Order: sequence, then structure tokens, then C-alpha cells
Amino acid sequence: MITLDEAQEIISKEFEKIRFTTDPIELYQPIDYILSVGGKRIRPMLTLIACSMFEQDFAKALPTAVGLEMFHNFTLIHDDIMDNANVRRNRQTVHKKWNYNVGILSGDAMCIKAYEQVMRCPAEVFTDVFWIFNRTAIQVCEGQQFDMNFENRNDVSVADYMNMIELKTAVLIAACLQIGALIGGASKKDSETLYEYGKQVGIAFQLQDDLLDVYADEKLLGKEIGKDIISNKKTYLLISALQAAKGERLASLNQWLSLKEFNPQEKVDAIRLIYDELNIRSLCKSAIKECFEKAEKLLVSLSVQDNLKKELRRFAETIKERVF
Amino acid sequence: MITLDEAQEIISKEFEKIRFTTDPIELYQPIDYILSVGGKRIRPMLTLIACSMFEQDFAKALPTAVGLEMFHNFTLIHDDIMDNANVRRNRQTVHKKWNYNVGILSGDAMCIKAYEQVMRCPAEVFTDVFWIFNRTAIQVCEGQQFDMNFENRNDVSVADYMNMIELKTAVLIAACLQIGALIGGASKKDSETLYEYGKQVGIAFQLQDDLLDVYADEKLLGKEIGKDIISNKKTYLLISALQAAKGERLASLNQWLSLKEFNPQEKVDAIRLIYDELNIRSLCKSAIKECFEKAEKLLVSLSVQDNLKKELRRFAETIKERVF
Repeated sequence: MITLDEAQEIISKEFEKIRFTTDPIELYQPIDYILSVGGKRIRPMLTLIACSMFEQDFAKALPTAVGLEMFHNFTLIHDDIMDNANVRRNRQTVHKKWNYNVGILSGDAMCIKAYEQVMRCPAEVFTDVFWIFNRTAIQVCEGQQFDMNFENRNDVSVADYMNMIELKTAVLIAACLQIGALIGGASKKDSETLYEYGKQVGIAFQLQDDLLDVYADEKLLGKEIGKDIISNKKTYLLISALQAAKGERLASLNQWLSLKEFNPQEKVDAIRLIYDELNIRSLCKSAIKECFEKAEKLLVSLSVQDNLKKELRRFAETIKERVF
Repeated sequence: MITLDEAQEIISKEFEKIRFTTDPIELYQPIDYILSVGGKRIRPMLTLIACSMFEQDFAKALPTAVGLEMFHNFTLIHDDIMDNANVRRNRQTVHKKWNYNVGILSGDAMCIKAYEQVMRCPAEVFTDVFWIFNRTAIQVCEGQQFDMNFENRNDVSVADYMNMIELKTAVLIAACLQIGALIGGASKKDSETLYEYGKQVGIAFQLQDDLLDVYADEKLLGKEIGKDIISNKKTYLLISALQAAKGERLASLNQWLSLKEFNPQEKVDAIRLIYDELNIRSLCKSAIKECFEKAEKLLVSLSVQDNLKKELRRFAETIKERVF
């Protein structure tokens, strides 16, 4: 089987080769642009790793792995329009660099091109891959819609939030593993176990993201700290704090949330202090730990030799230790 | 085989049954809304007709037919955002009734749901249907991009225009016939002949649309006459007129195109007069006739009994005689 580093390198090289340069260039240049910006490429890496656990010729899964990353990037183009985001990975977002119409239509084209690429898989798994991918794609849209709905809701529970991040983030990571395993010839059961594993790791990944927004070292993170706090984003931390806070502390929290004008650093410091007083950081860390424990149990139950599981264990470690 | 009227009724009944009511409703209500508004349902009708030419049990093609109509409606949601259109089929467009973000995301969801529905086809044609549909979907995006590009170009030729409408409109109509035929068990050759037939009919359909904008009876058309003229839309008529006009007439045409403020009725009358002087109406009618002649030849070459071709001949007639 291959290592995480090897998978990363293969994926990077593949994306260097892939170019979208045909006419109409207004449609394809933005696809080329967002794919060239990079990113962590976690999803295609996982597809390759999962395939290589069952099959030496992991290159079988490469086109599909690329397609899954393309789908993820399509959702970023449209999410950035909906969130009115100007910057992504330190570069202008597609609709900022071009315009809204280019963002909408090149996003649509990228979604369709992602299907094309995902379906370049062996014939014997064609139908299964299609249905897993298609179900996942619609769930990602549902997750994005729930996330947008939360902005206008004051009654979001931790359970609502966990459901939302499962849809928006975790199911695609899960599907990347399942599809990779199927291409590698895994049994239905093993492929489903890897799906569930991916879901737990995906949820942990998002919770870690929520933590980093508040507690990361800004220099390492490479983006501003506290953006979620400034925008009142309903993260695991804020929802848990709203649930745990009482009396004056709750009043103070709500006061900060309702202010239209404020000094951003003051708001970040004040809300971080409330989080600290309520022990929200360790609450979130416990939730992350729980996900990893469930993930490890699933990995143990997988019917492959233990040494084939070590790259996924290393992957879980890198998420756990992620400081940026 | 079934008649056009029967196909129409089956499709209408099917769309009455299909409801999108699950959570999150912000995602699914707009899909429900646009599908309930109706429209001519030409695409799924053609899928059923094509299937029924080769197979008695045409219901096999019904889910896929519905999916192809859903894909068409997804493109309408996003096109209406890009064209800033307020009204479609006498009702508010999705982004007007809700907002831009709802239009973008429910459009995305509808595209994915269209894939799901299109792929509910018999296993033996699953792979073929996927690749035909996927290729068509990307071509429709390319057509829309070319159409938008034409707005800012002054050098659009008739050939450019024909290529654009082939992509934006004709290939989906063509694919609806090809896919229906394949589900019905048609040979590769017959299914490809029907694809080519659909392309000719689709191009004729769009050229007829261009004509109707200028020459239809407004009461029958159910929408304003001359919208293309008012917005300087590069239609077959305008492109042909710009090519044919000389001297003072060309100057007058360009003058009208460059005016920022004008009386709409005056502009429509003036440009229609130029079209009449240049014989543009009959030029367009000849182009339409040529498409139908090619289509008829293709139909003749199809390896089914002549009586099975009569509904497609009737369909071509209804387009030819279309006054609204």
C-alpha cells in the first residue's frame, strides 16, 4: 500500500497535468484556476489510500480521486458566492476575480466535469460508484442549506449542528474512502466500514476547524483568528456556549452577538474568555476524541491486516495534532 | 407506439405526482415550484416517443424522461439568475421569489437530482445513458457561456450562432431522443440517427423562436413581442441583418443598436422594417426548412416501419406551424 506522502505527491502531480484550456475559456479558465490553487487535497488522498489497502494497482482509483476533489472545489466556488467571500487559499475567489455569472456557470460546468471524472472508474463498480457519489453530492447541498439556515435561527442545537457538518463536510470524506475501497475490490462490508470511519474523521476535522478559529496561532493558521466569532457563526463552540451559559454570562454573550458595531479584537477576546470560563474548549476536545475513538473501533473491525491500517491511523493523528 | 398527446398526458400526470417536500425546504421548495409551473415538456415527451418506437413498454423510459426535464429546468433557474430575468412562464423566477442564494443552491441540488432521476434506467443501458447525458450537460453549459459572450462581441457570425444554439438548445433535445431509443432497445445506429434528427429539429425550434419574437401575434405568444430586439440580442435575424445590410441601412441599424435611450415600440418597428427590407424573415424560414429537410432524411433512414415514424413527423409539423 502507499503512504500518505506518496498519495499526496501522486495527486499533486496529477493536478499539475490536468488543464482546462478549451473554448469557451470563460467557462474553463476558472476551473483551471481553482484547481491550480491547491489546497490540502485530503479527499483524493483518502481515495488512493483506501484503494491501495485492497489493491496494489491503486492508480485505478486516480481518475475518480481527481473527480472527487473537483466536486469539492465546485462546492467551494458556489459557497464562496453565497457567503460573499473575497479570498480563498490566499487568492481571490472565482466570482471576485471574474464575476458572479462566471462563478455560477463555471461552477455548474465543474460539477458536471466532476461527474465525468468520478465515473472514470472500472466497469465492475460503475453503478455503485455512481449511486454513492450522487447521494453524497445531494447531501453536501443539503448541508450547505442547513448551514445557511442556521444564520437566521436562534434555536440551533448541538444535534442540529452535528447533522449539518455530517452532511456538509463528513459524508464527502466518507464517500472518498468508500469509493476508493470499492475500486480496490473491497467487500461491501469493508467499504461501508470505511465510509463510517470517514464520517467520524470528517466530523472531527470540522470540530477541529471550529477550535482553530478561536485557539490557533494566527501565523501558523495563515488566516485571521476569530472570523467565526466576528461573524456570529454558529459553530460547535458558540452553540455549546449558548447552551451552557447562565445569568449574567449568557446576557453578556447575547449582548456581544447583538452588537452591530464593535471592535473585532475586543469581541474575539470577550467571547474567547466566555468560552474559557465555560470550559468549551475541553468540551469540543472531548467531542473530537469521541469521534476518533469511534473511528479507531471501526478501523479495528476492518478485515485487512493491521499494517494496512497504519496510514489511516497516521491520517487521524495529523488531524488530531493539526494546529493550522 | 404512443402518440404525442398520450406522451404529453403521461408526462403531465407524472409531474403532478412528483413532489419535493423533504428538509431543508429552502432547497427543495424551489424545485417543486419550477416543476409545477409546467412548460411544454417537449424533452420528456420525445424520450417517451423514441422509446415507444422500439419497445411497447415505454414506461421503462419514464423516470429518465422526467430527469431530462428536470435537468432542463435546472438550467432555467441558473440562466434566469445570469440573465436577471424576473418572469418565466408568467410566474416569478426562483431567485426573484426567494433570493439569489436560493436560486444558486436549489439549482445545484436540482442538477444532482436530475442525474439521479436520469440514471433510473435499465441496467443494460446505464453506462451509455450516463455518458450521453453527461456530455450533453457540459455542452449545454458551453452553449450558455457562448450565448453570454455574444452580448459583448460585435463579430458573431451565423456559423458561431448556429454552433451556440446547437449546444445550448439542440443537443439536449437530441439526447432525449437518443436516450429514449436506447432504453427502448434501439441499435446504436438508430439511436445515433435519432440524435442527429433531434439536433436538426432543435436548431429549427430555436430559429422559430427567434422569428416569433419579431413576427408572432402577441396575444397568442403570451409574452411581449420584440424583447430580443429591445435588448440587442444576437439572434439569427440580427446577425443575418448585420451581415446583409449595406450603406445607410447598416448605419441606421447600428444607430438603433447603439442608442441607450429609445422608445421600445419605435425600435422594434424600425428594426423589423430593416429585417423586412433585407428579406431576413424568408432567410430564416429557409434555414428552418433546411433543418427539417435534413431531419426528414434522417427519419427515412431509420430502420423501423414507416408507421412508427408518424408521431415524430407530427412533432416536426407542430414546430413548423408553431405560432406561439
